Amino acid sequence: MSPNVAKWLAISLSIYLYIVHQSNLFHCRIEMGVAVPPSRPFLKSFKSGLKETFFPDDPFRQFKNQPPSRKILLGLQYFVPIFEWAPRYTFEFFKADLISGITIASLAVPQGISYANLANLPPIIGLYSSFVPPLIYAMLGTSRDLAVGTVAVASLLIASMIGKAVNPKENAELYFQLAITATFFAGVFQAALGLLRLGFIVELLSHATIVGFMGGAATVVCLQQLKGILGLVRFTHATDLVSVMRSVFTQTHQWRWETGVLGCCFISFLLLTRYFSKKKPEFFWVNAMAPLTSVILGSILVYLTHAEKHGVEVIGHLKKGLNPLTMSDLAFGSPYLMTTIKTGVITGIVALAEGIAVGRSFAMFKNYQTDGNKEMIALGMMNMVGSCTSCYVTTGPFSRSAVNSNAGCKTAVSNIVMAMAVMMTLLFLTPLFHYTPLVVLSSIIIVAMLGLIDYKAAMHLWKLDKFDFVVCMSAYLGVVFANVEIGLIIAVSISLLRVLLFVARPRTFVLGNIPNSAIYRSIHQYPVANNVPGVLILQIDAPIYFASASYLRERISRWIYEEEDRLKLSGETSLQYVILDMSCVGSIDTSGISMLEEVKKIVDRRGLKLVLANPRSEVMKKLDMSKFIENIGQEWIYLTVQEAVARCNFMLHTCKSNPEVEHNSKDNNV
Amino acid sequence: MSPNVAKWLAISLSIYLYIVHQSNLFHCRIEMGVAVPPSRPFLKSFKSGLKETFFPDDPFRQFKNQPPSRKILLGLQYFVPIFEWAPRYTFEFFKADLISGITIASLAVPQGISYANLANLPPIIGLYSSFVPPLIYAMLGTSRDLAVGTVAVASLLIASMIGKAVNPKENAELYFQLAITATFFAGVFQAALGLLRLGFIVELLSHATIVGFMGGAATVVCLQQLKGILGLVRFTHATDLVSVMRSVFTQTHQWRWETGVLGCCFISFLLLTRYFSKKKPEFFWVNAMAPLTSVILGSILVYLTHAEKHGVEVIGHLKKGLNPLTMSDLAFGSPYLMTTIKTGVITGIVALAEGIAVGRSFAMFKNYQTDGNKEMIALGMMNMVGSCTSCYVTTGPFSRSAVNSNAGCKTAVSNIVMAMAVMMTLLFLTPLFHYTPLVVLSSIIIVAMLGLIDYKAAMHLWKLDKFDFVVCMSAYLGVVFANVEIGLIIAVSISLLRVLLFVARPRTFVLGNIPNSAIYRSIHQYPVANNVPGVLILQIDAPIYFASASYLRERISRWIYEEEDRLKLSGETSLQYVILDMSCVGSIDTSGISMLEEVKKIVDRRGLKLVLANPRSEVMKKLDMSKFIENIGQEWIYLTVQEAVARCNFMLHTCKSNPEVEHNSKDNNV
Repeated sequence: MSPNVAKWLAISLSIYLYIVHQSNLFHCRIEMGVAVPPSRPFLKSFKSGLKETFFPDDPFRQFKNQPPSRKILLGLQYFVPIFEWAPRYTFEFFKADLISGITIASLAVPQGISYANLANLPPIIGLYSSFVPPLIYAMLGTSRDLAVGTVAVASLLIASMIGKAVNPKENAELYFQLAITATFFAGVFQAALGLLRLGFIVELLSHATIVGFMGGAATVVCLQQLKGILGLVRFTHATDLVSVMRSVFTQTHQWRWETGVLGCCFISFLLLTRYFSKKKPEFFWVNAMAPLTSVILGSILVYLTHAEKHGVEVIGHLKKGLNPLTMSDLAFGSPYLMTTIKTGVITGIVALAEGIAVGRSFAMFKNYQTDGNKEMIALGMMNMVGSCTSCYVTTGPFSRSAVNSNAGCKTAVSNIVMAMAVMMTLLFLTPLFHYTPLVVLSSIIIVAMLGLIDYKAAMHLWKLDKFDFVVCMSAYLGVVFANVEIGLIIAVSISLLRVLLFVARPRTFVLGNIPNSAIYRSIHQYPVANNVPGVLILQIDAPIYFASASYLRERISRWIYEEEDRLKLSGETSLQYVILDMSCVGSIDTSGISMLEEVKKIVDRRGLKLVLANPRSEVMKKLDMSKFIENIGQEWIYLTVQEAVARCNFMLHTCKSNPEVEHNSKDNNV
Repeated sequence: MSPNVAKWLAISLSIYLYIVHQSNLFHCRIEMGVAVPPSRPFLKSFKSGLKETFFPDDPFRQFKNQPPSRKILLGLQYFVPIFEWAPRYTFEFFKADLISGITIASLAVPQGISYANLANLPPIIGLYSSFVPPLIYAMLGTSRDLAVGTVAVASLLIASMIGKAVNPKENAELYFQLAITATFFAGVFQAALGLLRLGFIVELLSHATIVGFMGGAATVVCLQQLKGILGLVRFTHATDLVSVMRSVFTQTHQWRWETGVLGCCFISFLLLTRYFSKKKPEFFWVNAMAPLTSVILGSILVYLTHAEKHGVEVIGHLKKGLNPLTMSDLAFGSPYLMTTIKTGVITGIVALAEGIAVGRSFAMFKNYQTDGNKEMIALGMMNMVGSCTSCYVTTGPFSRSAVNSNAGCKTAVSNIVMAMAVMMTLLFLTPLFHYTPLVVLSSIIIVAMLGLIDYKAAMHLWKLDKFDFVVCMSAYLGVVFANVEIGLIIAVSISLLRVLLFVARPRTFVLGNIPNSAIYRSIHQYPVANNVPGVLILQIDAPIYFASASYLRERISRWIYEEEDRLKLSGETSLQYVILDMSCVGSIDTSGISMLEEVKKIVDRRGLKLVLANPRSEVMKKLDMSKFIENIGQEWIYLTVQEAVARCNFMLHTCKSNPEVEHNSKDNNV
């Protein structure tokens, strides 16, 4: 290599290096602007929007490119999942399912009776409800761990909402008819949500709402049990704390020590077994068998001591036999139709939320997937069929599903086993419950409910997210001090308010340059980031909608004059450019476009220049159609903040020496 | 320079160049992770949140660091803006304001009478309402162009809402009392919104809603005028199209040709003058004077022909004198209190939306600023004072303000001039209106209303934003076919639904690398962007809240398996990494965190690795508290997508040759 060539090489390399380094500082330049996306036909974009909204999981994917016979099979498997997994069912699975099925049956019988009692329905209805619905679910459900049965919250809802219309004591038959009609509507509503893929209505009940709501409902249910524990005969029909306390303490002379003692004993027994099972998970069955054991012990005790003659209420006669059909009892023509629809919808949504959440939790835990929409259809069908066979609202209670899962169930066959066990009970064992004291049922309910008051989750919410905590507490307090519906409505409203607030009051951030890089980030989050002299970079954090347009206009103005004041005080380069980083503006409406036009005017009035960085395709389309791009100039819209800053810097430095450039350089590349 | 040195220089430069180039490809590396922001005390962040939400314009800024006396003066100027601009008022300004004031007075008198008629109130109330409120607004308002007066929509609302409770014909006094009480509540509500800085309630009425609503109201008002034009005596009190049409066509034998001919003549005259003024803007006064001219012509005609004896209804006797005080008439104790409050709130919000929008439009046009909160207080105070001085709801009508602005008004003094002119009318000229035929008033209203049906704006909405068009049309149809409140409620609900839908169904985009750059953008928007082999980059476009958590889980799963299917078909590198670009996730709640945990499990189950890019400070804080960062590993969270991709690429290439690296390299820098 001759010295001259080397020298020339060195110099040219240095120049190239300088260029690369420069371009590196202002990010590697690319010759690309932000193009206006081609407009799509309205129907096409509407269709794809619908698909994204309602079919995020693309359920028809597997049907594509299949022969018709296969399509029918797949369709059958799609709607009746048992056809999918039954062929792969083995004897090993059956052994596991048998054990878990018997275990949950021992829980289902006492709980069924207890919750029916809570719903002011005959105890036998609780047993009926543990027979038919599990069979339906086993065919249609996608969860392997969900154990179907009645739940406390739904029972409470039936009792309080139908109880407002009809007195269950005085008009038991009508009350029963209304309860199964409500169950029917709950089922229709649930299945409809699944079929129409409107699951997002269930999503309105956030985790925080459910924690608060369940806790509140559990508290209310426990308070209701004071009736059984204290052996009171008259009791308020209201569920709120104040009414219950008044009812309890105005009747102190009616309290019965017999039931009180019995209740305390059984509660202690149940709590002890639970504690034991928690300490030693291999003895999960101790906890699972405890309710049945309590029922047996209680019944024997009453039978031996004839306590039923000393004020200890017992279940009494239970009819032998399977579920009678009740199609003709569905009271569609009754004057209480609206009440039953309302009850059905609210009970349905609450039951759905519990069932789906429980199914999903266990699926996540055991690493398989449930399908939310199929679950809705399964739960809905099971309630619709249930309402025709003397059952009231059922879903997948957490406690029973946990026992099912602990006992090692493999598939929904455990539900079938449970149903068979309940069938045996219905056919042959009902007389054994004649002497079961109500106080035992109250104890079972109380202990089950105590597990639902999840104060740890509430504390976790407080730590993690104050707003979610407020939602949770408002649901709790609403349920405890007013009633179940009001608690739900308040919690959902507050949750929605938060969503609206996010959009109505979007945050704006000043971006700065992270040293030695071409990255621009919020100087609030990254204090090392530096302001670019003469340029204010603002990031908008949400879509620009009518609800936020005025706010953003105000806030952006304030950012500008605050920055101008700051620069004036510190004597730095005065402000020349305002860059709006539109990366996170996912959508804009006509009010938003007007807002941008107004901001443009405000910026112009102050003698500054507005620059846009990275507008998204939808925004770009609308800005183009509204002529805003013409107004601002296509050359002032950049793909990245870096490029926008580079352009501003170039203009700042060139214009200082030659003010003419500003007007002539618009179409040049920087 | 010796050859050796040059050679050495060239080589070292080449190496440096190579390094720079490399780093350029994977973006200039910076030694910085995403730190967890320090936690702020709850109260402090709560306070700053409140400030950002309610005081985006920082109204107390100018009070900072001022002596107390100056603070008092500033405070006075803040709450009574006339003190701010009055010292700068000049004779030049006054000349301009005098001309425009007289011009709008000539409009105010006939319009006042017409709208009072529309509200089923005595015509004189319309004149009263153009006297006191403009004076109050002149002191408190911040707009220089707003001309205060009664408006058709508010009049219609009063007529339909109060009219439902009390028949204005049979019980005129009570009806009047309720109307001014509703006005009082409207004022209190408006001022309260301003004082409590709750202007966002007004923002719920988006531009699209207002276009549709105003159009609907104008249609309804026009239909109502058929009574006057056709000279009907009995007419429905309902405002919907169907009732009005039935009322009109069941009485065809009652139609009067006299009023019909008069009406058509005046409507043509008014339309012609408007057309003329539009063609020649310097003759704006022709249009402005036309209503008064019509009134004078009509009155003379009736006086000369004695048409009042041939079925042409006239205004009749108007009492001379200024507004009587009506403090004692405010009916707070009446059984219709709830009706008046409801009417007040709805009328108040609608009047506010119109007044503020009009004020802001003209301010934007003339390059000055109005203050939304002060405007609310000004409009509120003017209605409160108005209700005590025989006035009903007033605001700043668009038509009158446009004339005011066209006539060259400089300040709110034009309102004072108008008020003085109206005062003169009240004191001396009321007898002149005795023979004014009602049909002239109907014509004036119809022509004013035709200008409010802004079909061009609706077409613009359709072109720009289909959703806004739906909102607009639902407001229009709701008002026309049901009633004003229902139209409003439907439109606001649909608008809110859109906001909720944005959050509940956030879009997710696959990002690709734009060739020859380190920029990653949606491959949907930029078709040139390339997928990175083995890496799926997803951008989430909205906060992750309870409402969107399930959806996002489904959608992300689908992206993953679709990408896997695609890669399998095309035989490319199989998927190894999923990068979630969190740049636009402005917020997350506890459901969102659970969702991320579930996504982590789904990704793990498929043998992939989850990587986060650019989580924002709030999200980072919550992910840290919930131990998600521990779970995913701090080293898998990157400041930019580029860095995350660089890391994935590094792992992909190193691991191919040496699978051990995966486990050892976690803490190395790439």
